[in-house]
Amino acid sequence: VGTTITLGLAAMARGLADRTGLVTALPHFRDLPLPEPAQFVIGGHDIRQTTFAASADEFRQNSGVFGAEWIDACRDELAAASDRVRPAPQLGLGSAVLRLANWNEPKPARSVRQAIDLIAADLAAFVAAQSIDHLIVLNVASTEPVFRLGPIHKEWDVLEPALADAGGETLPSSAFFALAAIGAGHTYINFTPSLGASFPACWELAQTTGALHAGKDGKTGETLMKTVLAPMFAYRNLKVMSWVGHNIFGNRDGLVLDDPINKASKVETKDRVITEILGYKPSSLVTIEYLPDMGDWKTAWDHIHFQGFLGSKMTLQFTWQGCDSLLAAPLAIDLARLADLEKRRGGKGPMRHLACFFKSPEGVDENDFFKQFDRLVDHVASEHQP
Amino acid sequence: VGTTITLGLAAMARGLADRTGLVTALPHFRDLPLPEPAQFVIGGHDIRQTTFAASADEFRQNSGVFGAEWIDACRDELAAASDRVRPAPQLGLGSAVLRLANWNEPKPARSVRQAIDLIAADLAAFVAAQSIDHLIVLNVASTEPVFRLGPIHKEWDVLEPALADAGGETLPSSAFFALAAIGAGHTYINFTPSLGASFPACWELAQTTGALHAGKDGKTGETLMKTVLAPMFAYRNLKVMSWVGHNIFGNRDGLVLDDPINKASKVETKDRVITEILGYKPSSLVTIEYLPDMGDWKTAWDHIHFQGFLGSKMTLQFTWQGCDSLLAAPLAIDLARLADLEKRRGGKGPMRHLACFFKSPEGVDENDFFKQFDRLVDHVASEHQP
Amino acid sequence: VGTTITLGLAAMARGLADRTGLVTALPHFRDLPLPEPAQFVIGGHDIRQTTFAASADEFRQNSGVFGAEWIDACRDELAAASDRVRPAPQLGLGSAVLRLANWNEPKPARSVRQAIDLIAADLAAFVAAQSIDHLIVLNVASTEPVFRLGPIHKEWDVLEPALADAGGETLPSSAFFALAAIGAGHTYINFTPSLGASFPACWELAQTTGALHAGKDGKTGETLMKTVLAPMFAYRNLKVMSWVGHNIFGNRDGLVLDDPINKASKVETKDRVITEILGYKPSSLVTIEYLPDMGDWKTAWDHIHFQGFLGSKMTLQFTWQGCDSLLAAPLAIDLARLADLEKRRGGKGPMRHLACFFKSPEGVDENDFFKQFDRLVDHVASEHQP
Amino acid sequence: VGTTITLGLAAMARGLADRTGLVTALPHFRDLPLPEPAQFVIGGHDIRQTTFAASADEFRQNSGVFGAEWIDACRDELAAASDRVRPAPQLGLGSAVLRLANWNEPKPARSVRQAIDLIAADLAAFVAAQSIDHLIVLNVASTEPVFRLGPIHKEWDVLEPALADAGGETLPSSAFFALAAIGAGHTYINFTPSLGASFPACWELAQTTGALHAGKDGKTGETLMKTVLAPMFAYRNLKVMSWVGHNIFGNRDGLVLDDPINKASKVETKDRVITEILGYKPSSLVTIEYLPDMGDWKTAWDHIHFQGFLGSKMTLQFTWQGCDSLLAAPLAIDLARLADLEKRRGGKGPMRHLACFFKSPEGVDENDFFKQFDRLVDHVASEHQP
Repeated sequence: VGTTITLGLAAMARGLADRTGLVTALPHFRDLPLPEPAQFVIGGHDIRQTTFAASADEFRQNSGVFGAEWIDACRDELAAASDRVRPAPQLGLGSAVLRLANWNEPKPARSVRQAIDLIAADLAAFVAAQSIDHLIVLNVASTEPVFRLGPIHKEWDVLEPALADAGGETLPSSAFFALAAIGAGHTYINFTPSLGASFPACWELAQTTGALHAGKDGKTGETLMKTVLAPMFAYRNLKVMSWVGHNIFGNRDGLVLDDPINKASKVETKDRVITEILGYKPSSLVTIEYLPDMGDWKTAWDHIHFQGFLGSKMTLQFTWQGCDSLLAAPLAIDLARLADLEKRRGGKGPMRHLACFFKSPEGVDENDFFKQFDRLVDHVASEHQP
Repeated sequence: VGTTITLGLAAMARGLADRTGLVTALPHFRDLPLPEPAQFVIGGHDIRQTTFAASADEFRQNSGVFGAEWIDACRDELAAASDRVRPAPQLGLGSAVLRLANWNEPKPARSVRQAIDLIAADLAAFVAAQSIDHLIVLNVASTEPVFRLGPIHKEWDVLEPALADAGGETLPSSAFFALAAIGAGHTYINFTPSLGASFPACWELAQTTGALHAGKDGKTGETLMKTVLAPMFAYRNLKVMSWVGHNIFGNRDGLVLDDPINKASKVETKDRVITEILGYKPSSLVTIEYLPDMGDWKTAWDHIHFQGFLGSKMTLQFTWQGCDSLLAAPLAIDLARLADLEKRRGGKGPMRHLACFFKSPEGVDENDFFKQFDRLVDHVASEHQP
Repeated sequence: VGTTITLGLAAMARGLADRTGLVTALPHFRDLPLPEPAQFVIGGHDIRQTTFAASADEFRQNSGVFGAEWIDACRDELAAASDRVRPAPQLGLGSAVLRLANWNEPKPARSVRQAIDLIAADLAAFVAAQSIDHLIVLNVASTEPVFRLGPIHKEWDVLEPALADAGGETLPSSAFFALAAIGAGHTYINFTPSLGASFPACWELAQTTGALHAGKDGKTGETLMKTVLAPMFAYRNLKVMSWVGHNIFGNRDGLVLDDPINKASKVETKDRVITEILGYKPSSLVTIEYLPDMGDWKTAWDHIHFQGFLGSKMTLQFTWQGCDSLLAAPLAIDLARLADLEKRRGGKGPMRHLACFFKSPEGVDENDFFKQFDRLVDHVASEHQP
Repeated sequence: VGTTITLGLAAMARGLADRTGLVTALPHFRDLPLPEPAQFVIGGHDIRQTTFAASADEFRQNSGVFGAEWIDACRDELAAASDRVRPAPQLGLGSAVLRLANWNEPKPARSVRQAIDLIAADLAAFVAAQSIDHLIVLNVASTEPVFRLGPIHKEWDVLEPALADAGGETLPSSAFFALAAIGAGHTYINFTPSLGASFPACWELAQTTGALHAGKDGKTGETLMKTVLAPMFAYRNLKVMSWVGHNIFGNRDGLVLDDPINKASKVETKDRVITEILGYKPSSLVTIEYLPDMGDWKTAWDHIHFQGFLGSKMTLQFTWQGCDSLLAAPLAIDLARLADLEKRRGGKGPMRHLACFFKSPEGVDENDFFKQFDRLVDHVASEHQP
């Protein structure tokens, strides 16, 4: 996703690519002072040492998307962005991800506190070097194993002192970045189902620093369909008896999800939305499986068995064949643009109006995609004159 | 559909069937003074002499839906309703439908005026005999060929005098029923794509008589899906390049639609909604084909080819396997219940708030299913105390 | 399946049902002295005390297949067959099946030897009471957990003495029936993936007694498709990169398969055929999931990703919606008819020519459905004059 | 297809591409003296002046197949082949094709005789210039309208004298190439549903000149599936009630097929095979529709409704997503290789053993793909030592 965001911003800035796929390019958001593609400066952290150009070439070859021409045209921007990527601390990473790591941090962090400080130092250096107005930390890393919260995660005053001696069992890697960003007042957006900023102590910290945050888990494909179709069944009073969703895909994210521990957190979020929209729990089943030959293409097959009038049983099936990174990247750019708008308008804390972008929108009970979208439109319209 | 409505009302009144499939059974409509199943008295017109019980048996055997037990339990209600069905005038019917006709009217109508008067007399007799409070004429007949309107259909003062000498070329059969009902102040609802009340002179007549009316073409399956999915593509700024929909089904309605002239009016309405929602016209294709072995089951396969970020091409396919009459019947009952509510509240003329039930909602530009549903909910809520 | 076989034989004997679905009704088998439906006498063993009529009614209501008329017409035959069903020993059953058991054996078997003897006594009594010419024991019980063979299962002389003290850990229930049948020279056919007669000591016993046997695991739906499509890819030199098959169904067999231990044996056999036909192992995935609302209907979705010329990647998907028992029952009847033919011709031991009926044909390497069918046709033709 | 054949032969000759998709690369054909990719010399006729390199680039961009690298590596071969393409006579072309023509022949042919002579002269010049051992004329042009044969097409002695004054109403363009090739003893292969050599007078001519020929209509996708699946239903005695096939695609061939006259010949051949394999005619429906956004990708959705045991109704659906040219090109190369083998072995006339490559195999009643393949394997094996 990081590669596609970087290439996409460069290709749009050069006028090669149009804005199809960007929600913020819709008429609803016209005339808002949103940042333009050329205004973004990309940096990042990674556990694999590679370049955006190499990733883009690999992606193109495996998945048959975007021409070699665009990669060639944007080689300068890709190289510059690659130079701004720094090695991520390996503390707090799951074993499935660590197996893929090939880039050692110069001074390995030994505690959560050290990891946060190292990240915060990188962020500060980036802001200074690039004269960044508004730093947005976006989590597009591989999914972490499910992390269960405990009493220690409730209050910042309790958690903060414990970090100096804490390791990966206290907080996962994604939370280090969230705390580093939010602690310094930067914006944090979690595009994955990992923990990130999703715990009370972190929200409390955001209240203190005034940082914006949003999450979690970008709603790109099958779950988008679920939050679109479930309301249809609900409003027609058709009773969903079972909803089965099988997902296959082949990118690196899939390789990590193939680990059962990591997969659990993804399945949990994909399965929940139907129950919340329908108001009852049908039989359900969600699988996510890694098949290397699929490249970045994700195919979801969903089978919905529903009961209609007079006990009749009917079926809806759909097959979604989407290229994951190309669905995710424009949404990530949208989130950054809308977060920037919110910042200019003086916003703070959780951005609940961004719910339509997420599978598990934080602080929001509404999972109906269309109600979520209406909320976004209302929000940006009503705050036009804050 | 008529058979299923009759059986369904009886089965619900007897407590055999629950209300799954009825929109008006949703919490949104709780506490409204809607008529109960046992309060309905069914009558009708037909061109085939048969009984509801025979139709229900045939339907059950061909399509494998509802048990023989329910038909047995409701034989009295089915027989009583069958006795209240009268032969329809054959004037103004298309040749595809006439081929199926086996019930001659005692005094064949020779002009539109005669046909209207005969129908009106039947309606008046039914109201008197059954002590009907509120007569609702519902068109669930087979689809007519496309009927092109001319200047004569604009004003009632111009049209009315011409009817005495006019034949089927001036107005199709569905309009006779609309004019007979609306002329007497009864409610008229058009569940088909046929003309019905959908011409200015008829609306003008409704203004005069205060009759309620709504239409047209019940949104039961594939088109419902289109008006649910097209907004998703629109709000994600994904560009639909082509939308192909192939429909196969095997009931008598299908036999009539297999006639190319009748089919045209159905395809027209199914194809239009996508363009209206998206705001541009993708390549599109709609077929409806009759396959006798399918019984009342309709299978729709839709293939949506769309473009996402950076020129990527992706695909969504769905297969809808629904039993047509069992999807239509509860919506027809909903329409009757909501029309009755409107009548009690003093409503007159077009019921625009019922748009979510129709493929071609009259007097309404909005085709997005969810916006249509919101409008319905708002309407019944706001007018609770008229 | 037992219910459907019983009802189907009765309905065919009465001339109510035609022979669609029976392989042995094809022209290839015309003029062979195959037993007619009216000549079969059905008995059996079960762990649940019920009647065929009750099962047929339940099946009809849950799955919407065959009319109540046929069940009514055949009530005598169904009742007579129900009276010939005896309680099965519970020794050697898996826990998933035991949870469903509600019929206790009068004298519980304490050892494998006792169980075999009890079954053998039942079989002998049945043969005597009904004057049976040729007894065929058909396993259509729920799938057992995978059973791993050891040295003790190699030779009958070693195994036989051990049975007196052995329990379910030595042999599973399905093997008791196989040994009881084969030990007495009856025919044994295994329509399930359970062990049955599939171990060397049992084959050896069949050589001694001259019993016919065949297995295992009836090839009814998705696996049939696999053994039809895989040869197509092979003969077009299209490289299958991955083959994913997801199966959902809702009958009692599904409930048992939902137990992971039982499921493993099913998945194993479904997955193997592709590799054997292609000659290489693509990425593959098979799931079988129980969803009660599906009734006896099994829906399989298969996604085949293959590579063609010049590295191109293409896809075939199929959805199979079949009613499991109605696919299995005619094949079971075919197997009995063909086994009877073989018996009349003096055949003994494994019936390799029946491979086209099985997912895991014993003693046969060929999985290509069409080559298997050719073998069957050749076999019955060539032995016409033994 | 011509472009893909040319690029594919070059890429294989250079060792860039492997032989996936080539039937003749299967073990069954190992050790046969088949010509190698580097031994082919490509020429041709066209009505559009373009280059293989330009076509390959356009194809790659529209359809996302094969990398720009391969086109770059093979630019010399593509350019050389382009130089060997000559303008085709426009006589006898349908209007749908003529609309695409942009390359005028230097001396327009005014009669069938003139057109044949011009083509024959081109072929002779090509043979001489390139020292061709064995010239194979392969028809991969767009599909012609259905051409109905009359008495004049029965005997060469009757037809031949009439050609001097005849125009396109007497024979279509494809037949000119067939007569030019066969008249000179060259091999003719018809990969399209057009007439080509498929009339008695032309077969008679082939007998005289000893020319090899084969046809017609390459079996690449949906029809291949039909000839694979129909035998399965037949051998399981499952009764196919209806078979619906909808095809959408977007290449230039599709544009021509979008003309109803041209489409008819394609639909005819696609629909016939099912009836011939099953031995009865189910309800059936075939559509082929042109959607420009699909590029060279063809998606076929087939819905097969079949009846099993005890009147049960079941469904198989499949979706085939294949890249048409990449499925056709290797088969065309196979045909050329196998025709060359046949020539070396002294074969003459119709090559019936190539039936498995064609939708409408000439002189062969067998449509079962597997029986056709067996015949091919038997043929090449049996003639190994002629």
